[in-house]
Amino acid sequence: VNLILITADERDERGEVVLADRRAEHLRSVLKIRPGQSLRIGQINGATGTGMVKAVDEHRVVLRCVFSGPPAQRPPVDLLLALPRPKVMKRLWAPLAALGVGRIILTNAQRVERYYFDSHVLDPAFYNAQLQTGLEQAMDTWLPAVSVHRQFKPLVEEELAGLVPDALRLVGDPAGPTRIAAELQATPQPRILLGVGPEGGWSDYELDLLQAHGFRRVGMGPRTLRTDTACIALIALCLDALP
Amino acid sequence: VNLILITADERDERGEVVLADRRAEHLRSVLKIRPGQSLRIGQINGATGTGMVKAVDEHRVVLRCVFSGPPAQRPPVDLLLALPRPKVMKRLWAPLAALGVGRIILTNAQRVERYYFDSHVLDPAFYNAQLQTGLEQAMDTWLPAVSVHRQFKPLVEEELAGLVPDALRLVGDPAGPTRIAAELQATPQPRILLGVGPEGGWSDYELDLLQAHGFRRVGMGPRTLRTDTACIALIALCLDALP
Repeated sequence: VNLILITADERDERGEVVLADRRAEHLRSVLKIRPGQSLRIGQINGATGTGMVKAVDEHRVVLRCVFSGPPAQRPPVDLLLALPRPKVMKRLWAPLAALGVGRIILTNAQRVERYYFDSHVLDPAFYNAQLQTGLEQAMDTWLPAVSVHRQFKPLVEEELAGLVPDALRLVGDPAGPTRIAAELQATPQPRILLGVGPEGGWSDYELDLLQAHGFRRVGMGPRTLRTDTACIALIALCLDALP
Repeated sequence: VNLILITADERDERGEVVLADRRAEHLRSVLKIRPGQSLRIGQINGATGTGMVKAVDEHRVVLRCVFSGPPAQRPPVDLLLALPRPKVMKRLWAPLAALGVGRIILTNAQRVERYYFDSHVLDPAFYNAQLQTGLEQAMDTWLPAVSVHRQFKPLVEEELAGLVPDALRLVGDPAGPTRIAAELQATPQPRILLGVGPEGGWSDYELDLLQAHGFRRVGMGPRTLRTDTACIALIALCLDALP
């Protein structure tokens, strides 16, 4: 943990926060903090700052918080992801938040199994905790917005434009002809909406629908990668290509 | 599994292979193969080809193998990695092989705990199985060469030049000033040796020693990433930047 995250409503009117959960435990047992020390803190979807340790006991840690850093910035990449199997999705949340993603749009697709949607990894309490782990690692405060869509067609045709306006739309495709940087050079945009398909790939119908709605196919060589590896690699390429 | 991997010594003089392990189990239970079907196969560190199913029973699968594809190509990126904690290393093997890495050089560093070296994740039987999972996923046959080095200084000063001659040497550094593509443009090379430090970062001494031996610092923004995320992201950037 490189940053202690708090929410806006945890702060009282004097700017004090009382921690009594795993954060307090981590501060006591791992970081072995003492009164008077200062810690790097961040407010979820808010600014970063400094927390001065006012008191530590076996039940709680009291911090006096000053937020002097810049406000949270929405990372310039959003992700449209065909829901991977629960085991893969489980370990993908934290890296996505750590790399920095503005919005995570999970969708059904022909090669997504229905039962994936019943997994506890889609429970907001579960994924927000995982996302926060990634933010604590990367020292960021932007909690990605998450939405889950069981129907691909209305998502692409009707909802996507509202969720992510004004972004270069790219879809990863092992057979894709061009590179992310080349697409961005041809059509400069400040943001990218990146589509990543199921491990078996998008169906022809899905790829056609995406292309009909402005997505351009971008490749990363002929290798078939597991969804988590592909997401991390493609997001890294997007972030590197953006100004 | 997108490719069935076999070793050279599994083939008899007629080109037949008898599988009786997890591969046979996978072919029977998951792919439900039948005699007469053809499968994509690959010989470790050799060519890809086709395996025609000759026989299937509850104990074994017999394939007649023809290797017609190109021989294995050493991927153009090698990795010098400060050994991460066992839990992280465990899940990194397969993605490294899937992305494609020629050689994996694991090293000690000041911020690497000694006990990491005693983990079973450094047992060749364990990591070769993990690496093969990555190859099966990515349909590649190049098994990365792995070496483990408990002393950083002699590795960098004496051994590295022999392990990886003729590569652009880059070291990932959150504070690094330049981008991978820019370094490669300034000094074109067909291969990259990529250094990735411990989660706490290289010490000043280590970074100085690396720079004295030709490594240039490359950045990927100010975020601190977990070692596995950083490796995947940086390797993707290297592969994308190489010709």
